[in-house]
Amino acid sequence: MSELYRYEELAGRITALIDAGTLRPGARAPSLREAGRQWRVSLSTALQAYRLLEDRGVLEARPKSGFYVARGGAIGLAAPAISQPPGAATSVSVSAVVQRLLHHASDPNLVPLGCAIPSAELLAAGKLDRCLARAARTKGTRYNIYTEARGDERLRQEIARRALRWGQALAPEDIAVTCGCTEALLLALKAVSRPGDTIAIESPTYFGFLQAIEALDLKALELPTDAASGVDLEALRAALEAGSITACLFSSSVGNPLGGTMPDDRKGAVLDLLARHGVPLIEDDLYGDLSFAEDRPRPFMALRPAADVLYCSSFSKTVSPGYRIGWIVPGRHMAKVLETKFSVTLCGPALLQAALADFLISGGYDSHLRRMRRVFAGNIDQMIRTIEKVFPAGTRVTRPAGGFVLWLELPAGIRSRKLFGQALEQGICFAPGDAFSASDRYGHCLRLSGGYAWSDRIEAGLNALGEMASAALGS
Amino acid sequence: MSELYRYEELAGRITALIDAGTLRPGARAPSLREAGRQWRVSLSTALQAYRLLEDRGVLEARPKSGFYVARGGAIGLAAPAISQPPGAATSVSVSAVVQRLLHHASDPNLVPLGCAIPSAELLAAGKLDRCLARAARTKGTRYNIYTEARGDERLRQEIARRALRWGQALAPEDIAVTCGCTEALLLALKAVSRPGDTIAIESPTYFGFLQAIEALDLKALELPTDAASGVDLEALRAALEAGSITACLFSSSVGNPLGGTMPDDRKGAVLDLLARHGVPLIEDDLYGDLSFAEDRPRPFMALRPAADVLYCSSFSKTVSPGYRIGWIVPGRHMAKVLETKFSVTLCGPALLQAALADFLISGGYDSHLRRMRRVFAGNIDQMIRTIEKVFPAGTRVTRPAGGFVLWLELPAGIRSRKLFGQALEQGICFAPGDAFSASDRYGHCLRLSGGYAWSDRIEAGLNALGEMASAALGS
Repeated sequence: MSELYRYEELAGRITALIDAGTLRPGARAPSLREAGRQWRVSLSTALQAYRLLEDRGVLEARPKSGFYVARGGAIGLAAPAISQPPGAATSVSVSAVVQRLLHHASDPNLVPLGCAIPSAELLAAGKLDRCLARAARTKGTRYNIYTEARGDERLRQEIARRALRWGQALAPEDIAVTCGCTEALLLALKAVSRPGDTIAIESPTYFGFLQAIEALDLKALELPTDAASGVDLEALRAALEAGSITACLFSSSVGNPLGGTMPDDRKGAVLDLLARHGVPLIEDDLYGDLSFAEDRPRPFMALRPAADVLYCSSFSKTVSPGYRIGWIVPGRHMAKVLETKFSVTLCGPALLQAALADFLISGGYDSHLRRMRRVFAGNIDQMIRTIEKVFPAGTRVTRPAGGFVLWLELPAGIRSRKLFGQALEQGICFAPGDAFSASDRYGHCLRLSGGYAWSDRIEAGLNALGEMASAALGS
Repeated sequence: MSELYRYEELAGRITALIDAGTLRPGARAPSLREAGRQWRVSLSTALQAYRLLEDRGVLEARPKSGFYVARGGAIGLAAPAISQPPGAATSVSVSAVVQRLLHHASDPNLVPLGCAIPSAELLAAGKLDRCLARAARTKGTRYNIYTEARGDERLRQEIARRALRWGQALAPEDIAVTCGCTEALLLALKAVSRPGDTIAIESPTYFGFLQAIEALDLKALELPTDAASGVDLEALRAALEAGSITACLFSSSVGNPLGGTMPDDRKGAVLDLLARHGVPLIEDDLYGDLSFAEDRPRPFMALRPAADVLYCSSFSKTVSPGYRIGWIVPGRHMAKVLETKFSVTLCGPALLQAALADFLISGGYDSHLRRMRRVFAGNIDQMIRTIEKVFPAGTRVTRPAGGFVLWLELPAGIRSRKLFGQALEQGICFAPGDAFSASDRYGHCLRLSGGYAWSDRIEAGLNALGEMASAALGS
């Protein structure tokens, strides 16, 4: 990472410690020397970080004494409590809700708090597209073919190589390239379930999971989920013992919409429970590379080599939503996955896969990821502080472990679906909470995306939204 | 079309007349002047065509008398009789068979008679890839997004514009871009059926249809099908009256593997029958642009504006198998199709769609299609003549109305699956007949692809295959 930005990253870390309560208001911050040693940065970098936090009102400099956590620096908003969905499986019917959302989510005229994709400016599009232009010029004819069923081998090699970051040795043959994480999840669900089966999911969960479950005539069992630490283990145990679950579909790390990352020990406990009951796990690791943690979180599949896990991810949140390239590591289900893939998309576009492989081989992807994480951490921080100022008292908000979405619980009485209509009229988009549940819950919640660099326009949109929410509460 | 190649096209037309029996062996061919008038070509073009046919041994020049059909010029091989599948719906399980085929179909070391794609050299890859390189350079960042649900609007405009060739006015809103015809068919089937339903299909039919039916837990009812004129109307009527059919999935024109095109009046009769029973038709028009007929055949959807038709096609057989761009015109089922698409692939790669739109707008696609048709007609002609020489007596072969595949019925006693294994050992690939049936039929049949320009290698492969078939019959 460039030294130029290291101080911003450090500032984000310190802010997170404050938000988590590790550093309390009024407490003395580590000295510059301590900070330098602890986070392995130079003294000047530590100073830059502290100056930035001072500018933001997070730290206060006291002459001859050092830096202290500002009394107003911690986030006053509570985090959402663990969710309490119904205990029974439900058939799913969110498509109408989601279609209405999607219709607006990509409208460039709206303040972009709705759609969970990074702005084009933040993606590494320039370099990637140069790779594509070169590939088109030099490989076009040779690549104008159907790829082998698993997809481009060089791309799979690069994907396998990246799993080494979390200490896992994957072979290119373990991986199949898909049309985004969307197709990966569909293939995973098809591989382990039959119509009528029940899939256990987090609650709230990404509406795309719900739509896939709906499309495959499956049922959803929503499990209580903590915004920080994931699915409730006791609820999972009880559901498994009841024998009704065919498979689980959980976030790997940095879930959508809650933004939490299950710690390794809890991930291990989930896998042990599932192994005992012979139930496979589909894990969605779409946001894992955008974790703010020092070490990139390990996916479930890396924790128990023998576990029945189907791992799904993509490059859509980090570099190329427009390329539609994801992948699946389906373990023992590879044959079934490839067979279904033949009927779903046959294969993906060869040239795009080749260009993405060139991009990854050429280096710089990790520094790009660090740059994105830094921007998103800043966005999240700004958004939470703005929300605290302008949203009605009683609003709860998540502290995401990465990524760029926030989940808000508004005070009871506010219907986010109604707010959605009002916000659209004011030129603002967000995602209403009811899209994230199979059981018509979260009508008082909403998801905000921080995928665009912080700007006056976004701040103004957030302010207006807060005012609308306050007005809705008062009315 | 360039004048340079017009004579080859004329030669193909005259050959077709001979093959169809319109011009019989020994008969006098039209004079050059008659030919020029009838086919609107110059005298020199007609002479070139006749000289070419003379070189090929199709015509004989008799001094002072003109050209005559050579005694050996007509194809002696019979065409396959109408198929006789069982009358009951069957669950489908062809995936294992097809996987084995696909594993070999793209192996460049094998003589490429297996996979039904044109060789990269015949596709318009160069120009298309220049469009892509330019799009990547100039539009990359702007197009690194999720497209709207229906796909790139300029591409849909171009697709709509091309429907004018058969006299149909489509709006871009009527069209959704898909990941090849494969996804289009899956979305169409999902839109009109539920697990357990029965889909009526041609017999033999493209194995991809069978796999999609299998993947969606549907049943297949194979209908007797004539290689030239399509599905048997009486059998269709009987099945509809029995009330067991949920939808039909038929080729639009130039079916795979039989290569036939249903005439307009029979297409109309099919639509009238389906309308009477309220059964939707999914039509696959993948090969329609490769029809050898003077006028491009009209799809079902163009014949009865009110009919319940879901039209599927793609650019994979004509310009860009590697781009994975198809489309669907689902009529009244658009909302359901888009909803399912969200769970299957979300959307397709934006930049490829933009590049293909640029390619189509820039012109030259129709002349490219004419060039492909000319090459394929020549390939088909050469293949049939070679088959006649080297395959065992009693072999039947189709007379395709377009495209580049041939369907062979070998004499009883030859198992094409066994032949497949022997051929692979000799470095030759083809498609065994049993992959084209849901009811384990066509074990004595095979499909040959003529997607590569005729060459000594292909001729030698075909010769070797014929000898293997003869040996199998003798053993």
